[in-house]
Formats: sequence, C-alpha cells, structure tokens
Amino acid sequence: MTEDNKNEDSEKLQSYLQRVIALLSKYKLLEGFVHLQDDQDKTLADSSVQKKNLDELQQLLDKLHPADIAHILEALPLEDRLIIWGMVKPEYDGEVLLEASDAVRETLITDMGSQELVAAAEQLNADEIADLAPDLPQDVIEDVFRSLPIAEREQLRAAMSYPEDSVGALMDFDVITVREDVRIEVVLRYLRRLEELPDHTDQLFVVDREEHLKGVLLISKILVSDPDTLVENVMSREIITLRPGDKAQDAAYAFERYDLVSASIIDHDKKLLGRVTVNTVIDYIREKSENEALNLAGLREEEDLFAPVLKSVKNRWVWLAVNLVTAFVASRVIGLFEDSIEKLVALAALMPIIAGIGGNSGNQTITMIVRALALDQINSGSAWKLIRKEIGVSIVNGLIWGAVVGMFTFAIYQNIELGLVMMLAMLLNLLLAALLGVLIPMTLRKFGRDPALGSSVLITAVTDSGGFFIFLSLATLFLL
Amino acid sequence: MTEDNKNEDSEKLQSYLQRVIALLSKYKLLEGFVHLQDDQDKTLADSSVQKKNLDELQQLLDKLHPADIAHILEALPLEDRLIIWGMVKPEYDGEVLLEASDAVRETLITDMGSQELVAAAEQLNADEIADLAPDLPQDVIEDVFRSLPIAEREQLRAAMSYPEDSVGALMDFDVITVREDVRIEVVLRYLRRLEELPDHTDQLFVVDREEHLKGVLLISKILVSDPDTLVENVMSREIITLRPGDKAQDAAYAFERYDLVSASIIDHDKKLLGRVTVNTVIDYIREKSENEALNLAGLREEEDLFAPVLKSVKNRWVWLAVNLVTAFVASRVIGLFEDSIEKLVALAALMPIIAGIGGNSGNQTITMIVRALALDQINSGSAWKLIRKEIGVSIVNGLIWGAVVGMFTFAIYQNIELGLVMMLAMLLNLLLAALLGVLIPMTLRKFGRDPALGSSVLITAVTDSGGFFIFLSLATLFLL
Repeated sequence: MTEDNKNEDSEKLQSYLQRVIALLSKYKLLEGFVHLQDDQDKTLADSSVQKKNLDELQQLLDKLHPADIAHILEALPLEDRLIIWGMVKPEYDGEVLLEASDAVRETLITDMGSQELVAAAEQLNADEIADLAPDLPQDVIEDVFRSLPIAEREQLRAAMSYPEDSVGALMDFDVITVREDVRIEVVLRYLRRLEELPDHTDQLFVVDREEHLKGVLLISKILVSDPDTLVENVMSREIITLRPGDKAQDAAYAFERYDLVSASIIDHDKKLLGRVTVNTVIDYIREKSENEALNLAGLREEEDLFAPVLKSVKNRWVWLAVNLVTAFVASRVIGLFEDSIEKLVALAALMPIIAGIGGNSGNQTITMIVRALALDQINSGSAWKLIRKEIGVSIVNGLIWGAVVGMFTFAIYQNIELGLVMMLAMLLNLLLAALLGVLIPMTLRKFGRDPALGSSVLITAVTDSGGFFIFLSLATLFLL
Repeated sequence: MTEDNKNEDSEKLQSYLQRVIALLSKYKLLEGFVHLQDDQDKTLADSSVQKKNLDELQQLLDKLHPADIAHILEALPLEDRLIIWGMVKPEYDGEVLLEASDAVRETLITDMGSQELVAAAEQLNADEIADLAPDLPQDVIEDVFRSLPIAEREQLRAAMSYPEDSVGALMDFDVITVREDVRIEVVLRYLRRLEELPDHTDQLFVVDREEHLKGVLLISKILVSDPDTLVENVMSREIITLRPGDKAQDAAYAFERYDLVSASIIDHDKKLLGRVTVNTVIDYIREKSENEALNLAGLREEEDLFAPVLKSVKNRWVWLAVNLVTAFVASRVIGLFEDSIEKLVALAALMPIIAGIGGNSGNQTITMIVRALALDQINSGSAWKLIRKEIGVSIVNGLIWGAVVGMFTFAIYQNIELGLVMMLAMLLNLLLAALLGVLIPMTLRKFGRDPALGSSVLITAVTDSGGFFIFLSLATLFLL
C-alpha cells in the first residue's frame, strides 16, 4: 500500500475491483479460446498474453490489504471468487477469512483443503481463531489446537467458551502488563526490548504479582512523564473494566460514551484476563446494525450476494411464512363481512387504506420505543407519559388523515356517511396502532425477548386485521 | 468516576437514572408540600429534608461523566430534564450539549441564556463548536467567534464550511507534528514538555517546513525505537490520508477495514489540515445507522422521546402522506374491478394476501441490494446475475407459497379455479417484486439518489397496486 493507493480510498477500491474483473474476464476469455483452437502457435502466443494478464492480476492482489481482498471476493460471483481466492498469498488466507462475511467465508472454506485451513488458522491469534472456529471442520480445529503452544491453547479454549454477543467473545489477549513500583525509565527500557507493541495499545495494564489489576498506565502518560517517576504516581486508578460475561452491546456503549481505544477485562477476583479494542468494537457495532436491518426486512442472516437460489430461499422463508399466517388471519376477518361487501362493494376498495396507514403509523411508534428500550431510556414512570404522548399524536393524525381520506371517499363515491365511517375508522385504527406500538415492545422486553425482533410483524398483523375489522364493522353498523 | 462506578457499566447507568428519578420526585413532592402548608416549623423541617435530597442529587450528578449526564437527560420528561440540567456543573455544559441527541440538545439550548451558551461553547474545541453551531442562536455564535484566538477562529471557520457527511465535518485540529530529520530523543523531549497529548494520539504527523505531510510516526514506534534513531528511519511513509471533501462514509469504511485510531486529512497540496479520530467515527457510524433505521420507519429524524405531540406529528407526517397517496392508488386499482368483486365477493377477502406477501418479498430483495450498493459490490457485470438469482428465488417461492395459498383458498371456498388463480397471482406478484426489488434501488442509484431512501416505499406501492391488479384481472379473465 503506497500513499497513492490509499488516498481517496473507496474510489480506489472500486477501481481495483473493476481491474480485477477486467483482468479476470480477459483471462477467462483466453482460457476458453485456447481450448477452442488447437493451433500450437496460437496457443503459445495466447499463453503469453494470458500469462501477462495473470501476472498483472497477481501483482495487484499482492499489494492489496487483506480487508480489501475480502471486499473484492464478496463482490464476485462464486466461480470468479474461487479463481481469485486461489491466487491470494497463503500468508493472507487467515486474515481474509476473518474479514469476509459469514456467508462468503463459508464458500471460501469449502474450497480449501484441511492442510490449507490449518495453515491459515495458524497465522492468527487465539481470539481470532475462536472467531473462525464455528465455520471450520472439527478435524481442522483439532489440528490447529494441537499445533498451538500451551498458553495459546488455554486462550483459545477460553475464547471459544464465551457466548456470542458477550464481552468475552470480543476479547483479545495482547496485553502488556507492568508493576506499579517501577520507574517509567524501566518501563521504557522494557518496551524497547519488544520489537513492536500490539495494535491499539493505548495503555499498559498495571498488575500485582497475582495479576490483579491495579490501574492503567496510558502510553501518552509514559511519553510526557519524567523517566524517574514511579508508575504508581502516574497511573490512573479510575478505570473502566469489563467482565467477560457482560453484554457486548454494553461494552460498545462504553466505548462510544467514554471514547475508549481499549478496555481491560477482569474476572470476579479483579484478575486481568485480556482486553477489548476499539477496532473489534467497530466491527461489532457494524455487524449488529446490519443484522438488525436484515432481520427487520425478514432475512435471517447476511446473505452471500451470489448465493445459490435454494440457499436464499432458506434464508427468507421464515418471514414469508409468518406473514402468510397473519395475511390468512386478516383474510378471514374480511371473510366475516362478505355480506356487507356484497351490499356495498366500495368497502373492498377502501379497506386497504385504513389497514395500510395504521401499519405505517404503528411502525413509527414501535421504532421510537424499540430504540429507547435499547438505550435503557424507558422506566415504569415514563411509560405512561409515552403512551399518553403517542395517543395524542394518533388523535391529531387520525383527525387530519381521517379528514383527508373522508374527503377522498366522498369525492369518489359521493356518499357522506361512507366518508364519515372512513374518518372514524382511521382515527380508531391509529389509536390502536399507538397503544400497541408502545405496549408490544415493552411487553416483549418484560418477558425477556428482544423487542427489535418481531415487534414490527406483530404491529402490522394487528393493524391489518384490526383495521379491516374496525372499518367493516363500523360500515355494517352505520351504513347497511 | 471510581473504578466501582464504571464496572458493570450499563446497569450502573440504569441505577443512576433510577436514583436521579427517585431523588427528583422526592424533591418535587416536598416542594409541593411546602407550598401547600403555611406552617413555619413544618416548612423549615421539610426544607432541611429537601436540602439533603438536593445535595445528594447534586453529588451524584457531580461525579457522572458528561456522556452519562446526557444519557440521563434524554430519558427524562421535559420538566424534570430542565431541573437536572440546571444542576449540572457549568464546566460540563459544553460537553453535555455535544453528547446529547439533536432533539434533546434543542430543548437544553432553549433553556439557556446567551451568556451561558457562550460560556459553554468556549469550553470546547473549534471542531466541537462547529458541531453545535447549527443549533446555536446567531448572536451566540458571533460572541463565541469574537472570544476565540485568531488560529482557532480560522479553524472554526474551516470546520463550519464543510458539508455534513463529509470528512471535513469529522475533522479535529489536535495534531502533533514533527520533522523527519530529528532524533527520537528530541521527539521524546518535545513530548515531555507538553503536559498531555491530545486524546487518541496514536501517531505524530511528520511534515516539512511548509506543512506537507511526509509520513507518520507511530507512538508505539517511538517507544520501541532507539532514542538515537532519526525520525525518517522509523516513520511510515505508507499512510492513509483523507481529503476534507471525501464522504464521511468512506472514512468510516477505511477505519473499519484498516483498524485505524486516527487518520490524517490533507488538502490537494498534501498539506496537513487535521485528523479524524476513531471516537468521532464511531459516533458517526452509530448516528448514521440510527438515522437509516428511523428513515426506514418513516421518521424524518431522531425524535425526543418526550417531544410535544405537535412536534412528533411534524416529524412523521411526510411518510404518512406518501403512503396515503400510494394507498389511494391501490384503492383505485381495486375500484376498477368492483363489478368482479360484486360477483365473487371472496376476491375481496383474498386480495390482501397477494399484495402483502409480494411486499414482504420485495423488501427482502431490496434490503440485500441496497446493502450491496452501499458497499459498492454491484457492477454492470453482476447486475444481470443478481436479477437472474432473484427471479430464481421468486419462482421457487412463488411455487411453494402459491401452492400454500391455493390450498388455503380451496379449503375455504371449495373452488379449484379460484385456488389456481391465487397460485398464479402469487407467482406473478413475486416475480414483479423480484424484478423491481433489483431495478428500483439500482435506478435510484443511477440517478444519484440514495437507494436507502424511498426504495422500500416504492416497492410496497408497486407490489400492492400490482398485486391487486394481477389477482383481480386474472380472476376476471378466468372466473367470471
């Protein structure tokens, strides 16, 4: 990576991708051409052109950062992806696997032999191997395990034991520890003996003989302190500590609020176990928010853009099935009123308006509440205030939009009563949406479920069936 | 902040919030009580209890981090929020304002006098003042501007000139620069003269006399290098540089991919302008993903949880209006087929199923495509592959779910033809959803629009109206 390569980063990356694709397609074209013709001279000439293309491609790949290679692999259809993957420097294999998304990683691992996989894993730290482990075949994990030094085996075992979404799963073991009774000068000499510091070392951890955490010594403090000072005089004792069992989400909030670069992880005895660094936290935040967006749209997990059709179907069917059930229920609600619709067919054309706007409004409320719940901003005292507010909003909206749909109805059907029924139904369905938009996520939360999952499906189900029921029964009561 | 306070972070924060609320309600209760009774003794006694509560509250607030205070303010209804805001240490005012969300910040600023605001702003750096500026009254900005030293005025002017969502808007000016021809020992002595380093200083910037960026000197490199080495021998020349006009999103990707703590910002002459640090990037990522979630649900911006009703209505009306229009269109599509519905009223009950599942399926496709577009993973070569894949998925889904709804229909209405029409309509609407689920975001992108905005509304509009049209016209053709 030269400075030029890195400047205007994203455009470069895009152009790398274009170049890879261009070189690859030239290569494949020639490959086909060679097979087609059996003329010896032609083959030789083409081979040399092809070789040039391949060399150029290889050079391009060799100078890319593993994260960029992973990005390019994600953007390529399976066949091309595997050609490029075969050309990646073996010493990058481990890091590229780490950087790739779960779905794409799977396709890359499937393409590798056990030995290659063991070699790739051995390039990584224990905490990184633990991240890959769920995707690796059992025999590869065992081989990797045997190849590790004892200390790292213990680390790998520990790292693999923490549940996903816990701080332990984000932990790394690259900590530098010092004692509190030494002088800064000694620390400096000690550091100089190391050839380099672990990435994201913004602080050293001050521990006693039993590894109990006493404080942290900021790197910047080392630099500005007199070399003769004792560590205990410049270390910070007010530190942020995490436990391996804490929720990863809470660690992310701590990094966000207190602007951390790294934070210590301790056990119940205050013994230092490891640390979390900001790069891991960023990856976690990004992945979490992406998964939320995917789940909201009814995709179970991140999908390889070029996944085979049946794999995609599997990733999407649950949501469609759930929605089909709620649609059947709504359909039966309408079925109850078939007599009314037969008498006044306009009802059929108007009812989706009430259901649709109710769903939109309910989803607005739910989004607000889910977000506030995630940030722990709602307590029993404020819940009532929120319900009152949302009901206020829905009354105002109900009157405004109710009047609009009422007038629309009158304009089309020249029927004042029908317009009034539309208006009333709109108001009532928005009230229902507001009330349940607050209560559904709060109830899910109360029963220990994640309110972000399922709230939206539930509210839409309620405002659909509820909207049809409210509108059609009002119409039956007042118009028929 | 003691270690204990920080440990098990989020629970603590939640308990602070509870304590603030409890103390506040005791305080307000007594306040009311004192007014109610005019007995001098009673008043005095209560005053002392009240004073104790207030003192306790004040002590609690004094030891909280500004980010935590902001968090608590967000969770309080307006009246309580302003009581607490009045008790916050004035020297924290600026930082609390920075940490609060836009909507809540507005309520806090409205509560402050010009002098207080100027004092608060003066505690901040130029880049931080620029972040607050859009919310500050003009006269306050002018006063702040006059109070700044010349150099900072220039910085403030620069920082305010960059558009939101550009790298310039994330820039800070806290850079330490060194020359390449000095020894590490000199750098160490220079650093020791500074009392502390700016937060997130993981590297010093190596510049020439004209401030052209030559490379970076990693702090960790300083620590492990021999003091006699020259800077030019240990500095990195392969560095990541950003331009103030680059998209903030691209900077975020660079931090994520290359695990950065800070990155330099240079102008077209390669002169060093400032830097971006990882904490700003995290805030940006978080805000961006939250705004996307809010926009998806039809909220224009982050809403104060306790916003007045009319403010909330304003925040939400655009989406409702747009959806009302699409609902009117769908309603008119149904209106075209009122004769058919009158003849076979089951159509009214069945049609929402076709429209609903089409919408769900289309949104699944769109979510995939929007995400891939955001990551620049789609190019003209792969677009066709994607369309083919999505059509494949929709055919499989159409056959499976079409068969299910067909059987459901037959079970209820004992009408085979009606079941077959349902099946065919489902298949066709899913095909429509797949095709437009790919084409809508790609077209929006082609015309320079953000595909994340509006794609979802458009696809739902198409699958609603399209679904009704497909189903009702098939029914009219084959059944009547």
